Amino acid sequence: MKMIKGILIPIGGNEDKGKDEDKGENNSLEFIEDGILARVVRESGGKNALILVIPTASSIPVEIGKNYLAAFKKLGCTNITVLDIRSREDAESVENLELIRKADCVMFSGGNQSKITKKIGGTSFHDILIERYHNEQFVIAGTSAGAMCMSKKMIAGGRGTEVFRKGVVVMTSGLNFIPGLIIDSHFIRRGRFGRLAEAVAIYPKLLGIGLAEDTGLVIKNCNEIEIIGSGMVILFDGTKLTHNNEQILDEGTPMTMTNLITHVLSNGDGYEIDKRIVKVLPMDAPFV
Amino acid sequence: MKMIKGILIPIGGNEDKGKDEDKGENNSLEFIEDGILARVVRESGGKNALILVIPTASSIPVEIGKNYLAAFKKLGCTNITVLDIRSREDAESVENLELIRKADCVMFSGGNQSKITKKIGGTSFHDILIERYHNEQFVIAGTSAGAMCMSKKMIAGGRGTEVFRKGVVVMTSGLNFIPGLIIDSHFIRRGRFGRLAEAVAIYPKLLGIGLAEDTGLVIKNCNEIEIIGSGMVILFDGTKLTHNNEQILDEGTPMTMTNLITHVLSNGDGYEIDKRIVKVLPMDAPFV
Repeated sequence: MKMIKGILIPIGGNEDKGKDEDKGENNSLEFIEDGILARVVRESGGKNALILVIPTASSIPVEIGKNYLAAFKKLGCTNITVLDIRSREDAESVENLELIRKADCVMFSGGNQSKITKKIGGTSFHDILIERYHNEQFVIAGTSAGAMCMSKKMIAGGRGTEVFRKGVVVMTSGLNFIPGLIIDSHFIRRGRFGRLAEAVAIYPKLLGIGLAEDTGLVIKNCNEIEIIGSGMVILFDGTKLTHNNEQILDEGTPMTMTNLITHVLSNGDGYEIDKRIVKVLPMDAPFV
Repeated sequence: MKMIKGILIPIGGNEDKGKDEDKGENNSLEFIEDGILARVVRESGGKNALILVIPTASSIPVEIGKNYLAAFKKLGCTNITVLDIRSREDAESVENLELIRKADCVMFSGGNQSKITKKIGGTSFHDILIERYHNEQFVIAGTSAGAMCMSKKMIAGGRGTEVFRKGVVVMTSGLNFIPGLIIDSHFIRRGRFGRLAEAVAIYPKLLGIGLAEDTGLVIKNCNEIEIIGSGMVILFDGTKLTHNNEQILDEGTPMTMTNLITHVLSNGDGYEIDKRIVKVLPMDAPFV
């Protein structure tokens, strides 16, 4: 298989942006050194990297753009640009395509993941993203909706409290930076276990990834995962399922699904997607 | 091991009580024939069985008692009594002990499970319950708090949205009708995956059971489980964990826990606790 040179950084939403009000118990990492955005900057090449913030998913793109400009400025970044793609025309404009050819990193904001796929999926902008991600040390980061859009099969919706019934989760196509995953976000706070489990029941060969807030992954070569951030990541491995009646159930019927391998991982732990291998820190490792 | 003759029926809360307003999509079973309370009545010996409704967990015991009287009346029951134990004295009174010696079934209501254990745990009432449950075809049913109190290790509390961090779940002692389980209720609607997973991380040899609303178990011989009701049951089997750092973490730190076997079961499926064996319906079985 061809080596993928780019790096994916999906984040579960609500990552620390260095504001005091973010400093709840859930953001226990030091923003400048250990925060997720600091890691995005390091993977992108450092403070002078050209990072494009893409608030396309958001209903308040201007405000979101400003928030990220402020957060990256706190990290000492000198070369941050908000690229507000609001239409497929924006995703074909010569000026924007020039920007994406020069950038070191894109950072997709939260909001509605379907807005990203509808406005960017299949455009020249998307083509360049894929091409650069495959062949260069290019970073694609995204939070919440911006993380969920990264996979081939994307969760478009599904209410968290009515889950484990056939037909709750709505699946569609993502931007396909990584085919082997299904990513869900705000996973703990919004109780999304069931909808991700149903997604895995529909696509048992895909690894289900539930990202807590202020928690993310660094994925290299489309395969090696490192967990970053202050929370936890839930992995659903459906490759060992012994029973799964999703295909034959009527809509609304409770599901049966047995032997779903579940992992709860946190900062510093790792995972290899192709081999389905967990790489955990030694029991006595300090929490960074 | 000694055969246990009694039957446990833990229920996840909000079971169908035969009122029209309960008939949402989640209560798809026919109340009189297939509902959970109808099953409680059948296991107790039929419409003439003496069933004691115990609203001790509730903060509105009189109202709760009336609701159950009405529900069991709809099922044609002729011998239902509300036994409102509000103190340890009530759980020692000659009159109440006489009642529990004659009853065929007790039905613990929802509310706060710690109220049940504080008022009944270790009393003569509790002793008689245990003795009859061990040696007679006596039914102990309970919903929500009334289900959670049935195990030896009981979840007393823990916020659903802050989970998978060491120290969120609060464990205490239940009424110990069944030692091998930890039971959580309202499992889907209140997003309690994480707190049950933490409970299993603390006690990996105990089977974690998450009951959805209007869903329950019929447990025979403290071992054979049958799933009943309109929703689903999540089982966490921690006996195959490959990593679990719960013991050494500081409070509030995100957990790592790998290879948690997870099953999603529904109406008609079964499980054997001692052998950790799932018994699912054939793929083409109709949903009752």
